[in-house]
Parts: sequence; structure tokens; C-alpha cells
Amino acid sequence: MIIVPLGVASATPTATRHLSSIAVWREGSVFLFDCGENAQMRMLQGGLKRSQIDYIFISHFDTDHYSGLIGLLSTLQLQRRDRPITLVGPTGIKDFVEWNFEFSNINLNYEIEYVEVEEDFEEERVVDTDDYYVEARPLNHTKFCIGYRLQEKDLPGKVDAEKAQKQGISEDWQYKDLKAGIDVELEDGTVVKSADIVGHPRPGDSFAYITDTKYCPNSVRLAKNTNVLIHEATFSDSLSDKAEETGHSTAKDAARVANEAKTKLLVITHFSARYTNEYVLLREARDDFFPTWVATELRPIFTDPAHEKGIIKPKVYIKEINRDNNNSNKNKGSKRKKRSSGKKKRRMRKRKNSPGKKRRSRKSSKKRSGKSRSSNNKNNGGNGGNKNNNNERKPKQITPRTPFDDFDRF
Amino acid sequence: MIIVPLGVASATPTATRHLSSIAVWREGSVFLFDCGENAQMRMLQGGLKRSQIDYIFISHFDTDHYSGLIGLLSTLQLQRRDRPITLVGPTGIKDFVEWNFEFSNINLNYEIEYVEVEEDFEEERVVDTDDYYVEARPLNHTKFCIGYRLQEKDLPGKVDAEKAQKQGISEDWQYKDLKAGIDVELEDGTVVKSADIVGHPRPGDSFAYITDTKYCPNSVRLAKNTNVLIHEATFSDSLSDKAEETGHSTAKDAARVANEAKTKLLVITHFSARYTNEYVLLREARDDFFPTWVATELRPIFTDPAHEKGIIKPKVYIKEINRDNNNSNKNKGSKRKKRSSGKKKRRMRKRKNSPGKKRRSRKSSKKRSGKSRSSNNKNNGGNGGNKNNNNERKPKQITPRTPFDDFDRF
Repeated sequence: MIIVPLGVASATPTATRHLSSIAVWREGSVFLFDCGENAQMRMLQGGLKRSQIDYIFISHFDTDHYSGLIGLLSTLQLQRRDRPITLVGPTGIKDFVEWNFEFSNINLNYEIEYVEVEEDFEEERVVDTDDYYVEARPLNHTKFCIGYRLQEKDLPGKVDAEKAQKQGISEDWQYKDLKAGIDVELEDGTVVKSADIVGHPRPGDSFAYITDTKYCPNSVRLAKNTNVLIHEATFSDSLSDKAEETGHSTAKDAARVANEAKTKLLVITHFSARYTNEYVLLREARDDFFPTWVATELRPIFTDPAHEKGIIKPKVYIKEINRDNNNSNKNKGSKRKKRSSGKKKRRMRKRKNSPGKKRRSRKSSKKRSGKSRSSNNKNNGGNGGNKNNNNERKPKQITPRTPFDDFDRF
Repeated sequence: MIIVPLGVASATPTATRHLSSIAVWREGSVFLFDCGENAQMRMLQGGLKRSQIDYIFISHFDTDHYSGLIGLLSTLQLQRRDRPITLVGPTGIKDFVEWNFEFSNINLNYEIEYVEVEEDFEEERVVDTDDYYVEARPLNHTKFCIGYRLQEKDLPGKVDAEKAQKQGISEDWQYKDLKAGIDVELEDGTVVKSADIVGHPRPGDSFAYITDTKYCPNSVRLAKNTNVLIHEATFSDSLSDKAEETGHSTAKDAARVANEAKTKLLVITHFSARYTNEYVLLREARDDFFPTWVATELRPIFTDPAHEKGIIKPKVYIKEINRDNNNSNKNKGSKRKKRSSGKKKRRMRKRKNSPGKKRRSRKSSKKRSGKSRSSNNKNNGGNGGNKNNNNERKPKQITPRTPFDDFDRF
């Protein structure tokens, strides 16, 4: 998982801090926890695609926690999203979205699956899939407020492929059986034991999002043994009376939850505007719980760097002007030409493998034009590709895009 | 007037452009035209105080033009605003605000004066004071949309004080009469003519805000002879069919309005996300109307620099740690002591005097504290300021603030 704080302010933005929102990237899906004003822009700036959002979780109905929701959903509409999105929050969230869309006269072209949580609930799995689930519990704020925990389910142990080969395993189905805990009998009658080849099951990654709340036992339950706990720390200890009064936590409260829950990493967020320097709060939290970080906007937290290794690819590309393509190629040396066309092919291949849906279709069209370009290199007569290209909008207007800009339609 | 573009994107933010909003600063009042997502934060970043907003004008109900409204009004609530704010927009704006505040359970402690404009109106002065008025006219968009013009009323001519003195004018009432166009008879019987002393009436400053719309005659009427015209230029000319279809203007349309209206400066804004480089649009507009600028976020446009001269003051101050104030003073040389204690006292007074209304009171207290400083320099015994200080919250936690941060309460 990659956790990207999009906004770390409380109540009101400062000149440098946006309103509450945390994005969690997990294998191509984005989970958005709260959606403060401008969360959609922060996602862009953080290199996260808004089109990849699958779930939005709203903790409670203080404006600073949901004021970016309608804007974000409108943008998804403009992006012509067609797959559904799941929206989790306190009862009333459906009314809110529907009223506001009706007000601005928007007919959504994608589906919102609402999961509304009643005020008197105790614990609920609001999302549950084969790979992960999200658990919700009520917190202790001035109004009904929900904390969330994203928990990956345990993974089967790793297969020791070398050992397996030595023992005579070669077929895919044999590996599958071994993984599933079934011993495999080879043709010569020897039995390869699953336990010998497959390691211990690996515990899934976990993340808890707890804001806004005073210290409460449910926070500890949600955060129990998590890898990362994002906890609000609105005030410093000297303002604990104000924290109590407004239903917020101090840095020490956050550390207390982290301690009791034995989380691996505590990340504090939701800083009152009075703390220009949030390290004041960090120091207090670290006194009680050392592995604490300050949530810094757009600075990603990798929960398992090895696991994600290689997944993040640079996304910069320059859309070149294809006009007079052939001429310019003619003028280049042959070696240079070869290499550059090779590069291009490689880029296409990458793009080629991504099927379906919006994002993708753009990519695939590019692939096509790219391909036709390389075929042009070989055969200057074949102009099919160029034609395609000319059918697109005149390339003159299209200038290089910023690396984080995922949107190219009005 | 100082015009500060807060957001120049259309429909959806890009990584570098915020949603539509323009702030106009005029003699301590802020007029906000549209309020896209995060306008409140952009104000802070642009050095504009949210507490100074007197009017908000919403052009129409596309989410990108009002999605920051509830967030902004909530922040004013948190700032404990108590003076009213005027909110102008199409009919329905009152419902919108009230529904959303009820949803998040906020009881406003300041008053919103709604000015709702009916869909079939032709022209209306939505604001009218002694010094200026705001005119509204319907534009031509896919939904009901309003354009605005902020017009200062003409000012009386300037008094030539030197000439007046020479002719024997000395009293205030005489100047007032002359300004009002009344001739003054002196004691010796000579008559001083108003026309000799007072120059021509000076035309008031003017500003028009026109978005979203295709070209339409009302745009020209609104922009007639303005000093500054902010006009949308969503598309370049090559996409004029798309502009027509979506009810938007091209850069050429904006230039056409500017030409016909004989505005002095055209500023284009509301750029489609496809134009990473908005100078493509600028070039097109300049072909037809040369005095055109691109609206750049947070770059202020001074309509009358001489007039505003000296009004903008640096706002940075560093709050020093006052603990052991007296001790440290004892150790220092006497000259130095005097100066530093003076400084500190001034700062305390500032805080001391700020009751109730926050922003305002702070300014006036500054004036007063300056006075008290000089008296302290004369008389070092008076320690009233220091005592006050110790009653405040522990200074240890309060770190230097950013220059643009106008908010110091949770």
C-alpha cells in the first residue's frame, strides 16, 4: 500500500495545509479516506489518478471532511467514468450527494454504491472482498463519526521454487496444489509435502484511519496491530481541555492509542491552524510512542516498499507532433533511427497490454498511432497510420502535459 | 481596485489550476466573483483576508463555480464573523446554502443577505451603494448564467489646494462647499468659484466578470468601457464548434467582446485543461485585441496603482518567547533593554486589545499600542503589558506564523 496524505489541516485550511483527506493506493485501486476541499486537485498533484478511485470513506459530516466530495464526483462525471464507485459514510450521505447533483442538474453516468452506516452501530465490515476488507467502528466526537481500518487478508506462504524443482515439481497445477496446502504425489510415487515447499502464511497489510475523536477504546480496536495508523492530533497537550471540549485528540492521545494498539507506525495529522510548526506535536507524540511521523501533504508512505517495488513507473510522456514525420525520419542516420523506433515500440508494448475502459482507450489509440509510425519507418509508402493521426484533433494545439495531469478532455 | 485571480481552470482543476474564482479588493472590501473549490485557501495564499469579504457573486450553478462556497462560509463561521455578508446568485442559492448548512448542522452566527436573481431578468443592480454598484445581466450558457459589472460611481474632481489657499480659502466647510460645486464668498466679499478650484469629475473604476457564455450582446453591455474585463476563453479558435456546443467562448470571442465594448484591458481566464500552455489562447486573443493578459493565479492586477499606493502593508510578525522576559532584560545593556522591552510591550498590547470582532479590532489596537510604546520608552516602570502576557497561553507552543495566515483560532 502507498498512503498519500492529501490534506492535513483541521477545520479550516491554512495557506499551506489542505483540508482532511488521505488516499491509499493498493494494487491499482485508490481508497479515499475523507474528501476535504480540493482533494481532487491534490490527487493530481500527488500523481494519483482520480479515475482509479474505487472507494470513498467519509468519517463524519463536518464540512472540512467532505467538502471536496461533490467536486470530485463531478470531475469523475466529466471524465466519463462508467464503472461504479463505492461511497461509505454515515446515514445521510446518499441524500447529500443526490440533493447536490439534482441542484446542479447533473445526471450521473456512473453508479454510486452507497454504504450508509447507522448511528447506533457497533462494528461493521463496510467492504469485504477476497483480498481485503474495511472495518468501521464509531468514534467519540461531538457528532457521529466513524473510524476505518483497511485490512488485507492473509496471503498464502511463499513457494520455494528451487526446492520444489529439486523434488521434481514441474507442472503449474502441482504448484497450485502445494500453495493450497495439498501434498502432491509425483509419477514415481514420491509425495512432495506442501509444508516443505510453502512457507508460513504472510499477514496482510493493514491501515487505520482515525479522525475526529477523543481517545476511545474503539480507536484502539481499529488500530490493533496495524502497520500504519493515521490518527488525528489536533492539539498539543497544553490544550487538552480544548481537545476534550471539541471532541478532538491531542498528540499524546494519538500516542496512547498507538501504544495500546501496538501499531508499527503512527502518523499524526489534522493539525490545528495554530501550529505552524507541526513538529511541536510530533515531539509530544514521540515522547510516548517513538515510531511516529508527521503526515506531510503529498509525501507518500510506503507500507511495504519491497512489495510495491517496480510498480510505480514514470508517467511522463511528451505527445509529439506527428506532422512531417516521414521527412524528419529520412534525415536521420539509420542507426539512430533504429534505436529510436525500438524505444517507441517498447513504449507501445507497455501500453498495449492494458485493455478496456477510458484511461486505457487513450493509451491504446496512442499505441496504434505509434505502431503505424514505426511501420512508416520501414515502409514509407504506407500512410494508414498517418491518416489515423490526422483524424485526431490537430496536434498543433496539444502541448506537453504535466506528468500528473490525467485529464485531457473538457 | 486590485483584482486577484484565485482560480483559472474550467470544469475540472488541473495540477496547477484551481477552479473559477476572482477576488476584487476595493478599499478594504473584498468582492468574490464565483467561488470554486479551495477559493478560501487561495485567498490566504494571495494575501487576502477572508474576513474582509463583503460580497460573493455566483454566476451559475455548475459545480466548478460554487463548490468552494460552503467551505468558505463555514470558515467564516469558525472565524466568529458577526457582520453580514451578501450572497448574490441565481434563484436557488438560498436553498443551496441553507440545505447544506442544515445537513452539517451549522447554526450560522452571522447573517447572509441573499440577492436572488430570477431567470427571466434583463438587467438588475444587485448591489447599490453611495460609492459603487454592481450590475447583473443574463449571459448565454447551457444553463442560466449571470455576468456582473462592478462600477464605482464617479468621484468629484480634485481640489487644487494651493490655488485655493492663494485665493483665501482656509476653512474646512469652504473646501466642502467648493467640492460640492458651490461657490464660496469670502469675508471681504470676493467670490471663489468652485469651477476654478475643483477639477473635472473623475470617472470611477470599473470591472466586468463574464463567464460562462458564448458571445452575446449582454457581454458587450456589461463590459462597455470598463477598465478591466475578465472574460472566459475556454477554447482556442480551432475548437469553436465545441465552444458553441458547450456554451463557452473561444479566445477570439473574448477579444470580440473586448473590442466592441472598448474595454481598456482584457484578461482571459477559465482555460480548458487541454491547454497546458494558456499562451496559445493569449496569442489568438491578442491578434484581435492587443491589450490582453492571461489571468495568472494569485498575480494581482492593479487597476489604478497610484490610487492604492501604500495601502498594502507587510503583515509579517514574529511572536517571540516572552518567558523570562524580565530576567533576560536585566542582563542586557540599558539601551538595548529599553528597546526590546518596548517592542515586547507593543506586541502585548496588540493582543490585549483584541476583543470581539477580531480582524478590525486588531488593526485599531495596533495603532493604540504604537502610542503606548512611546510612553513606555519614557517610563520603564509601567509593567502592565507584561502581566497581561503571562495570562495568555504558554508562548512556547506558538511558533512564527506565515505572512498570509490570517487565522489563529481552531
